[in-house]
Amino acid sequence: MTTEEVIGAGAAILTTSSFLPQAIKVVRTRDTEAISLTMYVLFTAGITLWGIYGVMTWQWSIIIANGVTVVLAATILTMKVLAVLAAGRKPGAPSPN
Amino acid sequence: MTTEEVIGAGAAILTTSSFLPQAIKVVRTRDTEAISLTMYVLFTAGITLWGIYGVMTWQWSIIIANGVTVVLAATILTMKVLAVLAAGRKPGAPSPN
Repeated sequence: MTTEEVIGAGAAILTTSSFLPQAIKVVRTRDTEAISLTMYVLFTAGITLWGIYGVMTWQWSIIIANGVTVVLAATILTMKVLAVLAAGRKPGAPSPN
Repeated sequence: MTTEEVIGAGAAILTTSSFLPQAIKVVRTRDTEAISLTMYVLFTAGITLWGIYGVMTWQWSIIIANGVTVVLAATILTMKVLAVLAAGRKPGAPSPN
């Protein structure tokens, strides 16, 4: 492996794995108040497109990294949407942003 | 542009811009309770490595996308660290995860 490949692999591992502690925290605490709904809508859509790009250009590293990330991001997004829907039934609910 | 390039560009724009609403929300509300400290430590480190990878392989799209993202991620990380430090001075402070 070249130095570039090692740095690229390290970058991919760090950015992909970073969503695991956030997903665990959200599932455990059910607290998504500070989480931005807009961020996870845009991010999950973007990661899905990266996965499609990986399939179209047949790059395994992109397919795997984004396959893992989309599951984690979709988990966080689902918890946020459920919280927003639940809050929507209460008066004075905060805006999701 | 090929279909692959359009999808890749869309993916890059969505994933990069997604951190803007989260950064704005955190700066406005100062609420980082549901934000995972571990996520933003790993993610900011990973995005920094992606930036270095972009410079080493001289790919402008990677340099620009990750340059923007590292500023947004570092903003969220800074707000979280400040909140953790402030909470550390109080008894019964929650764990940052």
